[in-house]
Amino acid sequence: MGTEADQIKLDFKGEVPPLRLIEEAERAREHLLSRNGKGKEFLGWLDLPVVEDSLLDATEEGARLLRGSEALVIVGIGGSYLGARAVIDALRSPFDDRFPIYFAGHHLDANYHATLLRHLSTKRYALNVISKSGTTTEPGIAFRLLWNDLSARFGEDELHRLVIATTDAHRGALRHLADLHHLQTFIVPDDVGGRYSVLTPVGLLPIAAAGLDIRKLIAGARDMRENLMRTGGGENRAVLYAAFRNGFYRIGKKIELFASFSPPMAEFLEWWKQLYGESEGKEKRGIFPASVQLTTDLHSMGQWIQDGERTIFETVLDFLNGDDLTIPSGTNEDELEYLAGRPLHDVNRIALLATMEAHRSGGVAGLRIEIPDRNEYFLGALIYFFEFACGISAYMLGVNPFDQPGVEEYKKNMFRMLGKPGS
Amino acid sequence: MGTEADQIKLDFKGEVPPLRLIEEAERAREHLLSRNGKGKEFLGWLDLPVVEDSLLDATEEGARLLRGSEALVIVGIGGSYLGARAVIDALRSPFDDRFPIYFAGHHLDANYHATLLRHLSTKRYALNVISKSGTTTEPGIAFRLLWNDLSARFGEDELHRLVIATTDAHRGALRHLADLHHLQTFIVPDDVGGRYSVLTPVGLLPIAAAGLDIRKLIAGARDMRENLMRTGGGENRAVLYAAFRNGFYRIGKKIELFASFSPPMAEFLEWWKQLYGESEGKEKRGIFPASVQLTTDLHSMGQWIQDGERTIFETVLDFLNGDDLTIPSGTNEDELEYLAGRPLHDVNRIALLATMEAHRSGGVAGLRIEIPDRNEYFLGALIYFFEFACGISAYMLGVNPFDQPGVEEYKKNMFRMLGKPGS
Repeated sequence: MGTEADQIKLDFKGEVPPLRLIEEAERAREHLLSRNGKGKEFLGWLDLPVVEDSLLDATEEGARLLRGSEALVIVGIGGSYLGARAVIDALRSPFDDRFPIYFAGHHLDANYHATLLRHLSTKRYALNVISKSGTTTEPGIAFRLLWNDLSARFGEDELHRLVIATTDAHRGALRHLADLHHLQTFIVPDDVGGRYSVLTPVGLLPIAAAGLDIRKLIAGARDMRENLMRTGGGENRAVLYAAFRNGFYRIGKKIELFASFSPPMAEFLEWWKQLYGESEGKEKRGIFPASVQLTTDLHSMGQWIQDGERTIFETVLDFLNGDDLTIPSGTNEDELEYLAGRPLHDVNRIALLATMEAHRSGGVAGLRIEIPDRNEYFLGALIYFFEFACGISAYMLGVNPFDQPGVEEYKKNMFRMLGKPGS
Repeated sequence: MGTEADQIKLDFKGEVPPLRLIEEAERAREHLLSRNGKGKEFLGWLDLPVVEDSLLDATEEGARLLRGSEALVIVGIGGSYLGARAVIDALRSPFDDRFPIYFAGHHLDANYHATLLRHLSTKRYALNVISKSGTTTEPGIAFRLLWNDLSARFGEDELHRLVIATTDAHRGALRHLADLHHLQTFIVPDDVGGRYSVLTPVGLLPIAAAGLDIRKLIAGARDMRENLMRTGGGENRAVLYAAFRNGFYRIGKKIELFASFSPPMAEFLEWWKQLYGESEGKEKRGIFPASVQLTTDLHSMGQWIQDGERTIFETVLDFLNGDDLTIPSGTNEDELEYLAGRPLHDVNRIALLATMEAHRSGGVAGLRIEIPDRNEYFLGALIYFFEFACGISAYMLGVNPFDQPGVEEYKKNMFRMLGKPGS
């Protein structure tokens, strides 16, 4: 029984991974689905697409509250930032300024936060603050700044109409503050790590507030889930992708270039980098996840990719359908008249195929992931696909896909150097 | 005789490159300055900071013409895009919408160009089209679209008031069109490759049109040039940087992470990636240039950097001064009260030092580049520094720093697959 999500296809250009790797990946898939492997306490993401309608109703209601203001600021970092940002940037026009959405608290830059506050000073804006603990330094500081600004301008009693907190169900600083001020809240589940959390309210609320259809996002993820749970071995696209990348890694291809020919996908590439980098980069192992935006970066990284060290392979997102924009006619001085009347999207797709062929002839193998459309449904399907494949891939590598012990190191140093009490 | 540019300092944390590498880099510097090495026909960039006042006067006059419109579109790709974008993004507030600046022609995305045209449809905008040949596919298509739009709306006779072409002095499609329509033009010199062209009108005109001070940019580059030409060996910062990175490369550190803790520097990191990737990535050699924006990416790539394969080293930009924004007081629920009253910029700098210490303890060596301020002068100095060091570094690697033979591969395939006449 097929679904639309089956239309997402992997094209290995004849270099399908060898059977022994597919078998190994299939065992890793079964290990993942046994729910008994490393990090098993963080497998809640496996079932997120099977969601109660009531949660989606509540999320959409929260989104309506946020959209009642003139603008929205989303405060979060890492997994509490990238998923929402990826989907919003992928699907909203960069020139749409009817309901501006800003991100804050994903770094410590003073200039950014100072100019953002000035920019917002004439606006009644809403705030969605996303933090399980409420004590993470970057979003914590941004939240203080924005909360104080809103308090001063609209009064503390008004804040429950402007601020929604996405946080722990019971514990933590943000939960306490939210309860104290009667804020609406959404829950960050205990059994879902940050980088797997985009299909929880962590991602769904801001995505809905951006005017996007979270039901379609979930439907795509659900259809992909059903397929990846039901099929096995070489029939399973996540198995194939995990086999593909581990195969290349084991023969010395240490860098995976994740590429898109659609600029709005830039933050989706960043989301993918967190997913794979944080899941696999441990115990002195792991593919280095890098991204390129094409054709832009063919004019910067293109030379290295074509002729540099032969230590890379690439994975390319290929959206079959695009906007109707035709190349106009002109004089042929620019040698482009042969393209007159052709849809620009088709030219971009041919550039994609030409690029992969050029790279292949330069010794860079590539996987093309064919996706019918850039919309909520297929992004949901892609999200679940990459998450599921990541679990398989990290198990093949022999590491825990669901922890991130190294992330604490800089924080420990920082707390000590800043003189945090008790550090 | 010192200049302000001397205040840019390299901090190797005690791991200064060994003498033999410094000596080798010094020989490469002398080879570069002999102007007789590989790619010697493209050394014009060495002297760009020694510029006639009349060229700066003319550039500023061109910028005034562009600023006479309601918005500006800059059309270019690769070296005709990244330098201007890097400096403009680094120094303009992301929230400044008084004179909007858009980029086009740096990719083939139909959605982007269609929505941009719609967005511009109510605006009288100016156009700076930058292409030596005028036949590059991406900017050529964007230019057709925008030229047609302006023609239809304002009439062909008006276009010399709206469009400035930066192109070859004598030849090519864009030169011909500019002459035909009496457009103002600026020259792309023959002896400067794209990635070294930001201090020619290719970069200077859009930077001036963005309201930035190109005289300060040039002054910083000139002071840096004077220093890098005069000093040698371990006294020369470009020699030290080239020795540092080649030293690590030779012991298996294949990836250089170029990091900034200032989000507006994101496109400067991209400019650096083109400069080094395109100069060194050839003959199956070359450091893989990657970038991270911190602290953002500590919550995504941080885990890999801390604990992944030990094949990386990092170079970090550290701006000493920043905006005056103080962390406000609050309850201590968020455990951040110990930071109340402290400037956010100081906290960001401590995060930087803490991060480099954490990475070092995880086996990732790092170079900190200390820069007093994020302004035109110091960006000019940094640009010249990285260009000069790149020439040295590529000579140490044994490749031609000034060609890019691999960039043609995808184009050849694309022309054939698109059916370009003669391909």
